Amino acid sequence: MKLLQSFKARTGEAFGAPLLAHTAEQVDAAAQAAHQAFASWAASTGAERAALLDGLAAALEADREALVQLADEETGLGPGRLNGELDRTAFQLRRFAAMAARGVAFDVLDDPAVAGAPPVGHPAMVRQRVPLGPVAMFSASNFPFAFSVLGGDTASALAAGCPVVVKAHSGHLLLSNRVHGLAQSVLKTLGLPTGLIGMVQGGGRDVGVSLIRHPAIAAGAFTGSTSGGAALQAEANARPRPIPFYGELGSINPLFATPEILAAKGAELATLLAGSITLGCGQFCTSPGVVILLKGAEGQSFVSQLTQALAAQNPHAMLTPGMRQAFDAGVDHLVVSDVKPLLHEAGHAEAPRPFLAEIDAVHFIAKAELREEVFGPASLVVWADNLSQVTEVLQAVGGSLTVTLWGAEQDTPDNQALVRAAMAIAGRVLFAGVPTGVAVTAAQQHGGPWPSSTQPMTTSVGDAAMERFLRPVALQDAPAWLLSRAGRPC
Amino acid sequence: MKLLQSFKARTGEAFGAPLLAHTAEQVDAAAQAAHQAFASWAASTGAERAALLDGLAAALEADREALVQLADEETGLGPGRLNGELDRTAFQLRRFAAMAARGVAFDVLDDPAVAGAPPVGHPAMVRQRVPLGPVAMFSASNFPFAFSVLGGDTASALAAGCPVVVKAHSGHLLLSNRVHGLAQSVLKTLGLPTGLIGMVQGGGRDVGVSLIRHPAIAAGAFTGSTSGGAALQAEANARPRPIPFYGELGSINPLFATPEILAAKGAELATLLAGSITLGCGQFCTSPGVVILLKGAEGQSFVSQLTQALAAQNPHAMLTPGMRQAFDAGVDHLVVSDVKPLLHEAGHAEAPRPFLAEIDAVHFIAKAELREEVFGPASLVVWADNLSQVTEVLQAVGGSLTVTLWGAEQDTPDNQALVRAAMAIAGRVLFAGVPTGVAVTAAQQHGGPWPSSTQPMTTSVGDAAMERFLRPVALQDAPAWLLSRAGRPC
Repeated sequence: MKLLQSFKARTGEAFGAPLLAHTAEQVDAAAQAAHQAFASWAASTGAERAALLDGLAAALEADREALVQLADEETGLGPGRLNGELDRTAFQLRRFAAMAARGVAFDVLDDPAVAGAPPVGHPAMVRQRVPLGPVAMFSASNFPFAFSVLGGDTASALAAGCPVVVKAHSGHLLLSNRVHGLAQSVLKTLGLPTGLIGMVQGGGRDVGVSLIRHPAIAAGAFTGSTSGGAALQAEANARPRPIPFYGELGSINPLFATPEILAAKGAELATLLAGSITLGCGQFCTSPGVVILLKGAEGQSFVSQLTQALAAQNPHAMLTPGMRQAFDAGVDHLVVSDVKPLLHEAGHAEAPRPFLAEIDAVHFIAKAELREEVFGPASLVVWADNLSQVTEVLQAVGGSLTVTLWGAEQDTPDNQALVRAAMAIAGRVLFAGVPTGVAVTAAQQHGGPWPSSTQPMTTSVGDAAMERFLRPVALQDAPAWLLSRAGRPC
Repeated sequence: MKLLQSFKARTGEAFGAPLLAHTAEQVDAAAQAAHQAFASWAASTGAERAALLDGLAAALEADREALVQLADEETGLGPGRLNGELDRTAFQLRRFAAMAARGVAFDVLDDPAVAGAPPVGHPAMVRQRVPLGPVAMFSASNFPFAFSVLGGDTASALAAGCPVVVKAHSGHLLLSNRVHGLAQSVLKTLGLPTGLIGMVQGGGRDVGVSLIRHPAIAAGAFTGSTSGGAALQAEANARPRPIPFYGELGSINPLFATPEILAAKGAELATLLAGSITLGCGQFCTSPGVVILLKGAEGQSFVSQLTQALAAQNPHAMLTPGMRQAFDAGVDHLVVSDVKPLLHEAGHAEAPRPFLAEIDAVHFIAKAELREEVFGPASLVVWADNLSQVTEVLQAVGGSLTVTLWGAEQDTPDNQALVRAAMAIAGRVLFAGVPTGVAVTAAQQHGGPWPSSTQPMTTSVGDAAMERFLRPVALQDAPAWLLSRAGRPC
């Protein structure tokens, strides 16, 4: 019988009574309960799905004070950020509720019969979608509301008609249990099976691996480290029947600024960028970890401004002691890899100091280890000789959630080449502002080529997130009664 | 220096002069040439893409007589079928040409800025798509036009803006070379780089593995056996940077008929089904390999009719001697697995006889080996005690390109359960007709859960096939010049 202990992020001291890790039998029971809940939920109406999602949003808001306090103790992210994140979580639950109510999951493509021989003639076809089945949802550490128990993966899966079994993150166990308890209350109030939103918890890898291997699980959704996600993806692929695995993994989010825009407003941009690098102690998957600059006076001046702006920042405690240690290890690893530190100060036991270093593009391209994400308030300036080398740096990065291009305002061959290189490696390309902060909206794309995502054609944020859990099925010569259901599964 | 020899399918004798297998250096050169062609093709207009695709269709039609003759010698599929397949291939090239001309690949989702703080407020976002890059396209043996050099994968990849490197199938090497030669002529006439449609050939696995491992390759598309597809998928996943791999693999395409419809028109359906089982010598990925029936007089009578109708069929030669031997081995494997043969006759050296056998549902569910595809004119009757057991048989099949349900005309709980079970495992569910013959149309879905597809959210036939080669990118606060390109990459 394994015990799990929550800790206070700011002091590292034990927080609350220990919890029991779930056994393999309990993981099986949760997956079976989700399976039992699947048929009726798959057949639910958009209004029924919307009622659940709206109910979950309201339950979070009604318990806001206690939830934020608990989250703040366990994560150290601060009440301002956590209240905002709870708002976002309720917003995305309601956004998927509205999509469910509009019947987006039931959209059909009607393709009437065409008389005659093939290839022109064909039978009556209707393309609709079916929910995949129970989804194993692996919570992230760094968004205890928005990428956790009732986060975007859960909201989009439920809207699609799929039950969810959440693997709680060990970084906010008490919060996860409280949120899951709220969800269970909402399910009971609505007369829905409690297995529709299950949750399991465990310290090591056992619980997560049992979950993704379970025959009743039809898909995985994960937000976290490249190594953890790759391991779970390998498990999903190694099943007797492989299943889709949607992993949002590591990303270093390169940013490039032209000398012209740095000359025009370098100081302002340095402050903006320093805020983005240290936001939430750098614990964002979209944290800008690489700043590409052209060698020259504008770049030099900007780096001085950025170094000063970073030095003025005071990042808060990291989410867990393990992450705090990993940050130091990551920074040390950069330093032994020949980067030249520009800002490198000893931090506190829980809160690190911002780290900034520089290296030449040729060395950055040659050394793969420099392209590993350092999770926390660290960034690396990469000096390029010319725009062609900037493109090579982006190609070396290879896959990223975002690329930011500051100063590509004019339609020039240079800017076209930059945009082309950025779009080739990223799910989102920004031309102003900073990559931290991911809008929950229709056009969002959160996921790019490996390693930023295991499935770069999909997004884990925004309206298209629901598509991950719906599979197309063509109905050929379907009877009238089936077509009268207008895309809703039986 | 390895030599490749083409064979006449009907006699097994050597056909034409030997060809040279490509070396690793030649594979590299083809992938590099595709990479060189990528930037300009990605930036091409819809009209330019349509001109190429239309030109390829016209080139196939202009060389029809020689192509069909060559294909017939190498595959034994017969001129009737091969002319029809050439029509289909030209049709799908033109269909993707029309989609390209309409700008489907350039569709954008415009999501204007909303003022205010997040989560409601957000920056201006535009969601568009970028082509992935060079696609490694592995030809199938059984459709020497429609799933080969200029088949659906090539057409949809080119329409999406991706170059293609074809791995020629060793079952129709001379045809592949002739078709590739036509493609090269069309490219030259249009002033396009010849690397846009490359081709490599090799006997063993080396050439295909070199191709899918090549750093310039951005996606794989495959139609063939489960073992071959799984091996290539593993290679795609094991790359330093994994890439999407779209494999359309094995499928046994269960068919269920109610006693009522068998009583009403069993004889007609038996003839229809026998034609589907033996069509093209059973060498269709949608060949109905499992016929589920309820125990009783109607089923017994239907099986007698089906056995007679199959006995009257004379399948033509199989595609290759290896497939012919594999068919016998597959049938022998079924027989030692306790199925009871109903029609089991010695075939000829090149052409097999149709095979039909029966087994109880309980044994079918218990023995996984009975669910392996036997490629050729074979089918297995599975006897079920009741509809609940029919559902269990479908669940045991687990993943299939198609499920056919004959007689589900009324809106009853029984039929709802059947439809639910069918949609849970298949990409296409038919309520009339037979699964062989896949309409090239808007609503088609050719791909279901494993093992029928490695990516069941995608299709390899129909308009949605193009989506496999386009990746979404969100542009945030994009400059006016970029937006004025209306979704076309730089």
